[in-house]
Amino acid sequence: MGHLLSITSWDRTELESFFPLAQNAVQALASPTPPVSRLAGRWLANLFFEDSTRTRLSFETAAGSLGMRVSNWTASGSSVSKGETLPDTIRNVDAMGPAAIVLRHPMSGAPQIAARHSRAAIINAGDGTHEHPSQALLDAFTLWKRWGSFEGRTVAIVGDVLHSRVARSNLHVLRTLGAKVVMVAPPSLMPAGIEALGAQVSHSLDEVLPGLDAVMMLRLQVERQKDAFFPSVSDYGRRFALTEARADALPAEAVVLHPGPMNRGVEIASAVADGPRSLVLSQVAYGVAVRRALLEKLL
Amino acid sequence: MGHLLSITSWDRTELESFFPLAQNAVQALASPTPPVSRLAGRWLANLFFEDSTRTRLSFETAAGSLGMRVSNWTASGSSVSKGETLPDTIRNVDAMGPAAIVLRHPMSGAPQIAARHSRAAIINAGDGTHEHPSQALLDAFTLWKRWGSFEGRTVAIVGDVLHSRVARSNLHVLRTLGAKVVMVAPPSLMPAGIEALGAQVSHSLDEVLPGLDAVMMLRLQVERQKDAFFPSVSDYGRRFALTEARADALPAEAVVLHPGPMNRGVEIASAVADGPRSLVLSQVAYGVAVRRALLEKLL
Amino acid sequence: MGHLLSITSWDRTELESFFPLAQNAVQALASPTPPVSRLAGRWLANLFFEDSTRTRLSFETAAGSLGMRVSNWTASGSSVSKGETLPDTIRNVDAMGPAAIVLRHPMSGAPQIAARHSRAAIINAGDGTHEHPSQALLDAFTLWKRWGSFEGRTVAIVGDVLHSRVARSNLHVLRTLGAKVVMVAPPSLMPAGIEALGAQVSHSLDEVLPGLDAVMMLRLQVERQKDAFFPSVSDYGRRFALTEARADALPAEAVVLHPGPMNRGVEIASAVADGPRSLVLSQVAYGVAVRRALLEKLL
Repeated sequence: MGHLLSITSWDRTELESFFPLAQNAVQALASPTPPVSRLAGRWLANLFFEDSTRTRLSFETAAGSLGMRVSNWTASGSSVSKGETLPDTIRNVDAMGPAAIVLRHPMSGAPQIAARHSRAAIINAGDGTHEHPSQALLDAFTLWKRWGSFEGRTVAIVGDVLHSRVARSNLHVLRTLGAKVVMVAPPSLMPAGIEALGAQVSHSLDEVLPGLDAVMMLRLQVERQKDAFFPSVSDYGRRFALTEARADALPAEAVVLHPGPMNRGVEIASAVADGPRSLVLSQVAYGVAVRRALLEKLL
Repeated sequence: MGHLLSITSWDRTELESFFPLAQNAVQALASPTPPVSRLAGRWLANLFFEDSTRTRLSFETAAGSLGMRVSNWTASGSSVSKGETLPDTIRNVDAMGPAAIVLRHPMSGAPQIAARHSRAAIINAGDGTHEHPSQALLDAFTLWKRWGSFEGRTVAIVGDVLHSRVARSNLHVLRTLGAKVVMVAPPSLMPAGIEALGAQVSHSLDEVLPGLDAVMMLRLQVERQKDAFFPSVSDYGRRFALTEARADALPAEAVVLHPGPMNRGVEIASAVADGPRSLVLSQVAYGVAVRRALLEKLL
Repeated sequence: MGHLLSITSWDRTELESFFPLAQNAVQALASPTPPVSRLAGRWLANLFFEDSTRTRLSFETAAGSLGMRVSNWTASGSSVSKGETLPDTIRNVDAMGPAAIVLRHPMSGAPQIAARHSRAAIINAGDGTHEHPSQALLDAFTLWKRWGSFEGRTVAIVGDVLHSRVARSNLHVLRTLGAKVVMVAPPSLMPAGIEALGAQVSHSLDEVLPGLDAVMMLRLQVERQKDAFFPSVSDYGRRFALTEARADALPAEAVVLHPGPMNRGVEIASAVADGPRSLVLSQVAYGVAVRRALLEKLL
């Protein structure tokens, strides 16, 4: 049994050997008569200290497809509102015997703390602005299905890189697999020192578009405007939104990803989100398979 | 596979052939050794953008009895709070592979929108003031169990008809099956043009009572008083509440229904709600069977 | 089928014969190939009108381990927000056919009301300041595993006894099994007349420590300070917190329990909560087994 706290613990061999497992999961999910899983009857605890739709449902669906029972727990309506510490919450849930605890938490590093207090496998489902490992795995699997290999590929990650756990996890995975990664953001939304992690940096989406094989748009959290990270949504959009015109500037085979939820008309135009380049719904569909494979691998 | 967006798409043949399916479901639910269902292992997503107790639990219980897995999703604690559109939420959930999506939404017409973005069967569990198809089916099944045939029967639907999705769906079903339907409400709570849909209209409950075979009381949403739909709860009650005295004015065999939750002492007296004419708990019990049959029919 | 409304209905014979059932459940939960339960396919409704983490998850896990389906219901997002009465909510849920309803409610006596309206077994999971029977059973089972017999044992229950349903249920169970029980609290947090139920009373934790075999710390609800039940948290702690120094004053074999969630540094020091005397996580782990045995016994 292993945890998945940070995707940086997976090297190229581990990543590349994971994709065939995820492909097996795709086939198992498509089967009308799925085989009985050795995980049947074990249970998974979804512990979500932050809102989620797709990640929580995706893990729930993946676990259910393996015959696992799933218990959902959210911070509201729980003992957290009574001031319980994270280690105590984890130890209490762990004492009930789950095989795995899927944890989303607003604090970067929470999964590392949780792992020190749990015999169950801790799976990081997003911690603060730090990491979102299973998202990076499903993004990479979506591209692997398309490309087979990442060598010679260039991927731009565009938007609020500063606050994005998706960007951090994807940077590691894509770089490790051999792709070139360009972070595109205004200076106020670009983390200092990101080049040291292997990213190229650009402040102009228009400049990078013609050289891309894939563009990952990040969600703009419009409520950050009040903290002056960007002057206005329309100003941001003029420079960093993936409009139809910008999508037309991409090479013919380039694809578009978005982790969701999308702000249509803010960081991405509807015509692009729903257009032929978009892999957005493939990401969601493969997300279930990737999480199924992840549970099988870790447990 | 089919959707259930509006019960108006079901004609008399379809309605009449559904009741035996629901009766089979009643028997299956009563069996100590229920047969394995072909739906076992598939999953149902409950998407509730509005509060619910009985409808959500009823679908969950029905699906569970078929061996289906159920995932619950509510608007709070989800990506809706991040501004995601209804089509995007539906497409994301659908991409994870549910067999059916049970949708409750405050906006009339939401299920029609959802159906355009879903391969899964969309089941309308209440949309705004528009329709509540499975409620009308369980109400009709409850009366079918009692009567066998609807010919020559007269049913009054009493209360806030204007805002009631239950009234609209029941009007279609009861009329289509051959019953006469009288809508009883103060003028401020009666939708204009309801006669065109085949309803009779009355503003006096006392006048219609002696001719009824069944009376369906609607919940009075007391918070509507502030919008001046009625002058006061007590004034409303004097004219439209089903008191003991009014229940005594019904024919001997007439029955009383209420979709719940009841406002005891507002639109219905406790002695009537709990009295021998009341089919309120039969409605709830049959609701599980009706929804089980519905899942079997649609999927 | 029987309810569990109050643990005071269980006499010594019933309590003592329950422990071996719970021990069987411990073994069943540890088995890699759990036997099929006769309860498989039946369903349990968790009705929680108050927040909970461990009790809700514990019942859910216990029922799931028996192959039961579990539906969760909380007061928020439900028809309770529309003014439905407790009897109506219970009767509606019951009409859908659950085998058991696990009920937590802020009103003392709610389970007794519920039982009058339910064919399903009502299991009290905490009612107001009245009782928490399954907590008392798991506390007693944890001590039974340690001691075998309660004769000659002395247990202190320390803290906000006035508002504690855990204290009331434990007093009955421990006394009935032959232990001596000392309630330790400031006068403002000690219920009048508790001696009549068989408790000894003390206002000094330091005085009683050397004679104890077990000390059960209660959670201090710090928000009660504003109602002047105690002058300040630090003043309370000086007199009633289980500090390391106080734990050292216990006999060598004495153990420490806490029902959770713990206020570390308020009523219990972290070093004690995590120390060798602490049975806190055993309580949680045995809680699943105790609730599994309870479902098997009642249904």
